[in-house]
Parts: sequence; C-alpha cells; structure tokens
Amino acid sequence: MGRNRVVSGMRPTGKLHLGHFHGVLDNWLKLQEEYDCFFFAADWHSLTTEYADTSAIRENTRDMVLDWLAFGLDPAKCVIFEQSMVPHHAELSLILGMITPVSWLERNPTYKEMQENLEQRDLSTFGFLGYPVLMAADIILYKATRVPVGHDQIPHLEITREIARRFNHLYSPVFPEPEALLTETPKLLGLDGRKMSKSYGNSIYLSDDAETTRKKVMSMVTDTDRVRRADPGEPDHCVAFNLHRIYVPQDKLDEIMPACRSAAIGCVECKKILAEFMVERLAPFREKRQELAAKPGLVDEILEEGSRRASEESGKILAEVRAALKF
Amino acid sequence: MGRNRVVSGMRPTGKLHLGHFHGVLDNWLKLQEEYDCFFFAADWHSLTTEYADTSAIRENTRDMVLDWLAFGLDPAKCVIFEQSMVPHHAELSLILGMITPVSWLERNPTYKEMQENLEQRDLSTFGFLGYPVLMAADIILYKATRVPVGHDQIPHLEITREIARRFNHLYSPVFPEPEALLTETPKLLGLDGRKMSKSYGNSIYLSDDAETTRKKVMSMVTDTDRVRRADPGEPDHCVAFNLHRIYVPQDKLDEIMPACRSAAIGCVECKKILAEFMVERLAPFREKRQELAAKPGLVDEILEEGSRRASEESGKILAEVRAALKF
Ligand code: SF4
Ligand code: SF4
Repeated sequence: MGRNRVVSGMRPTGKLHLGHFHGVLDNWLKLQEEYDCFFFAADWHSLTTEYADTSAIRENTRDMVLDWLAFGLDPAKCVIFEQSMVPHHAELSLILGMITPVSWLERNPTYKEMQENLEQRDLSTFGFLGYPVLMAADIILYKATRVPVGHDQIPHLEITREIARRFNHLYSPVFPEPEALLTETPKLLGLDGRKMSKSYGNSIYLSDDAETTRKKVMSMVTDTDRVRRADPGEPDHCVAFNLHRIYVPQDKLDEIMPACRSAAIGCVECKKILAEFMVERLAPFREKRQELAAKPGLVDEILEEGSRRASEESGKILAEVRAALKF
Repeated sequence: MGRNRVVSGMRPTGKLHLGHFHGVLDNWLKLQEEYDCFFFAADWHSLTTEYADTSAIRENTRDMVLDWLAFGLDPAKCVIFEQSMVPHHAELSLILGMITPVSWLERNPTYKEMQENLEQRDLSTFGFLGYPVLMAADIILYKATRVPVGHDQIPHLEITREIARRFNHLYSPVFPEPEALLTETPKLLGLDGRKMSKSYGNSIYLSDDAETTRKKVMSMVTDTDRVRRADPGEPDHCVAFNLHRIYVPQDKLDEIMPACRSAAIGCVECKKILAEFMVERLAPFREKRQELAAKPGLVDEILEEGSRRASEESGKILAEVRAALKF
C-alpha cells in the first residue's frame, strides 16, 4: 500500500456534458496517473432514485463509460468497473448497515435536500435512506485512502469515515479512514444560465457534433443587461463567458473583455469565437468516441474485465472483514 | 415448480433446547418429507442484534446445525445452508431495499417490541430497521411458496408478500407471494415457569446428557400452590406437567393426574417418571449427535455443499431479477 488508492463512482446519467467533464472527468484523468484508481458506474445508486423506471440505466451506463474512455480514462492505468457486477458491494453494505445508527443517516444533509428536490418521486424508501451506507461500502471495500469530493459531498465522506471507524473499533482495524481530495469544481452554467444539468435540457454534451455544439453556443444566454448591440456588456455577468474562460485562450480573452465592455464586439460574433475554440478542442474526443462506439461490445468487455479485477481485490478485503467478524 | 417450496431460517443461538425442538424442528422434519425445503442458519440476522459481540456466531451456527442433523434433518432430502455463504441474499436485499418504504418497516410491530425487549443494547441501526427486508430477500430469493410461521411472525411474512408484490408490479412478475404454513407452537415453559429461553438460563438442551437432564427436571417448578407433600396438586397449574404432556404416554398421564389431585403422588416421584421418559426419548438424538460431533469438519462440509446448491438456485433467480430490472 505504498501508493494511495482512490475510489470514485459516477451515477450512470447517460451521455456526459461539459459540467461532468470539467467537474469530475478532467480530475479523474489526472488521478489515474498518480494513484491506484478504481472508477465505477454506480448503477445500484441509480436505483435509489430511479427505481420506478430502470429502463435507461443499462444504456446510460454504456454511454457514460464510452465518454470516459473517449476522454482518456485508460483501463491500463485504472480499474473501470460496474458496481452491480461486483456483488461484494452489496455484501459489505449489508454488514455496514448493521453497525450504522439510523440517526447518522437522518441527519445527513443531502438526505432531506434530495427528498425536497425530487419531491415528485417517492423517495421515502429504505434504500434511499441507506444511500450513505452503500457509498461507504463502495469506498472502503477497496481500502481507499483518498476520495475526490466536492464541497457538498464532504458530509457523505464524513459518514464513510465514521462507519469505517466504528467497524475498526468494534472488530479490528481493517479499514483506513479515507481522506478527501478536495476538487474545486467550477459550477458550469448551462445554455439558460442555470447550472448545467441533463434534467434542465440546457447542456452541451461531449458527444454533440460540431454543428450541434455551434448551435447550442449561439443560443446561449449572455449578459441579460445587454439588450441592444450598442449597449456595453459585462463579461462577469455573461453566461456564455463562463465557457469562454475555459475554452478561449487568455490572449484572446484579453481582447474580448474590453471589446465587450465598450460594445466594440457583439454577442453573436463573440459567441462564434467561443464556438470555434470549443469545436476545435472537443473534436479529438468526439472522434475518439466515434471510433470506440464503432467497436460493438467494447464497453462491455472493458466493464467485465474491470469488474473481474475489482472483485479480485474486493474479495480479499471482504475475506478480512469476515475474519474480523469471526464469521 | 410442481412441488411447493419452503424456505425457513433459524438464528444461530447455539445449542437448541426443547422449545426449539417442539416449536420448529419437529415441524421441519415433517416439511422435508413433503416439500422442496431450504433451511438456513441466519447468521447475518444475528448481526442485527449481536453486532457488538460476534465472537459466538460461528460456533453457535455449528452447534445449531449439529442439532438439526442429530434430529434428522437430512441433506439428502433438503438443502441446509448458511446465509452468509450465499451472497445473493445481500444482493437481493439491497435491491428490495430500494423499493421498500421506510414506513412499512417502522410500522412492523416486532420492530418496536424487540427494541424494547433488548433495550440494554443499541438497536437503532439501519440493519435492525431493515430486518424485514433481509428476511423478504431470504424467502423470495428461492421463490418460496410456503413459509412456516408462528402467529407472531405473520406481520413479517405480510411485509415479505408486500415487497414481492411491489417488485412484481414495478418490474415483472418474478416472485410468487409466499403463503403462511401456520405452525401452532406450544409455548414451552422452562425450569422456572417462564418461557424456555437460552437467555433466561432455564432451558433443557437437546445436547444435555442423561444426568443433566434428570437434574434439571428434578429442579423444575411444579404447582406453586402445592406447598407440602400432603397438599393436593393441579397438573394444569404445574410447570413440570407441560413436559409431561409431551413426553409421558397418555395412559401414564391418566394415572398421574388423579394421583396428583388426591396427593397420592409427590412431585419428586412424579418428576422422576417424567425424567425417565425424557431421557429415554432423547437418548437416540444425543447418541446421534455425539456420533456426528466426532466427525470433525462434517458440519462445515454439509454447509458448504448446501450453500453451493442454494447458490445455484438463487443465482438463477437473481438473474431473472436483473433481467426484470433491465440491468
Ligand atoms: S460580447 Fe461576449 S462576453 Fe460580452 S456579453 Fe456578449 S457574449 Fe458575453
Ligand atoms: S405431582 Fe406431578 S403433576 Fe402434580 S404438581 Fe407435582 S409434578 Fe406437577
């Protein structure tokens, strides 16, 4: 255990958008170079909220993993697997549930928040309440020492640490307490200025072709105070500009900002510049994706092989767990 | 599926006492002749209440299964296995938890009752709350159609049926709704007149030798109103007599009852009669048990083979579950 071990999962929401890329995937790409990484499609977690209609989970998993691969996640450098293909997650989750007080779960801030956000669905299920237990199992099943998290996920990781500590205290010190690798995720704004999210229909997808990307960029909200072409604008209040900052090189930004503020440039022209830089930057990923998508069964093979490797590792650790329980 | 299928488990509490025998085991012996039976040691269930000290679970499992075998449960007629050796139970439990409302679990009458009975322990865990979910998984994982239950377990079976129904409704009709095989279990009284229970220290064990059995019978409370030898007694108010009814032949009972009521027989003599009938009846089981216990590894082998057979069956059904979920 010289190298730190990182475990991280993503719910299979389908094709990834730029918010996923700049928030999570670009970070994973760095992590796979530095750590022992286990990245998984959290399909069982999808059930916590999608149990009433599971028809899309399988395809969403395949689409998402295809994006991972297109973006450079490399099965030779990290283990890429599907949660439900490694039943040890369920087994450890069952065991950890036995030592987790319900009060820890109820006080989890995400619990009530998600129930409110998704209030049109019935989320008063046992599985939804136990979400942090399954998450703890996912992580400590591989003796992860580092977990990439955003600020909002820190309470979840804290429950994981508490559960690991409680297990170690009750039985024997099997699990390291994983530490947060805090990732500062820029809150990427979507076409309409709200947070980019599949459910808002305001996203630009990694898999969008050049034409679609251009159209979406051109339809993007800019500075809502800039009503006429002749009005000066303010990049800091411009929705489109949150993408400029990522895709347009600094010297070009240095030209655009004063030009916007003096109304020397119009939004149409300005967004055309953005669109071209984006299309150029995303082209290689899109090509790689098409190439990979043309190989039927590739994603399944990678997930099977990854899940086999993950199981091998988690099987060893579960054997330690059973020994600690004196089973 | 011509034959009905029965699934039933017992928590590994260690050596079995007469209450287990006359309440459950004698029923299992009949069931194995008539049905496809899956009998299991519910070691994961033990964790729901024993999580703080698991040291005895393994030995208790072995002791209990040895009693099963000594009493005639026959691996050639039924599948005898250990719950934790079939990880499919955890997997199905996780899945069923996703569709089980917390309110179903909270309104389970056994939930509050057990929390009160065992109030010295902290039973506010997620696993304890989810006990009926795991139990539902145990049962429907084999598509059981019949479940032997006592009156007090009917609410549990009702939750199992509701969960099966909900799964069938949400996805596809995979599970039969198991029906109760109501077993009238005589509430066997222990040495002190309370219900026979390991935790009261008032039990006669199947594995007790003849001498111990005799001593325990002689120490048994009788009719507490019969203070002196010359006082008449009343068998219906006599604790020892609840065992007479099981072990002493009817013609002998017909002699004892009037003799007790007329004080013609004393309790010492009367219990001696009982003790001899018990020792005689239990001798073959005890001998069989010693014989089996002398074969080291026998129980482990039987549990391994049984768990393999159980897994084979549950694996098929879990594949149907995954297909129904479109995973
Ligand atoms: S000119 Fe560019 S930066 Fe200024 S408001 Fe329009 S799109 Fe935004
Ligand atoms: S004589 Fe027998 S039946 Fe009567 S009180 Fe004594 S032990 Fe019970």
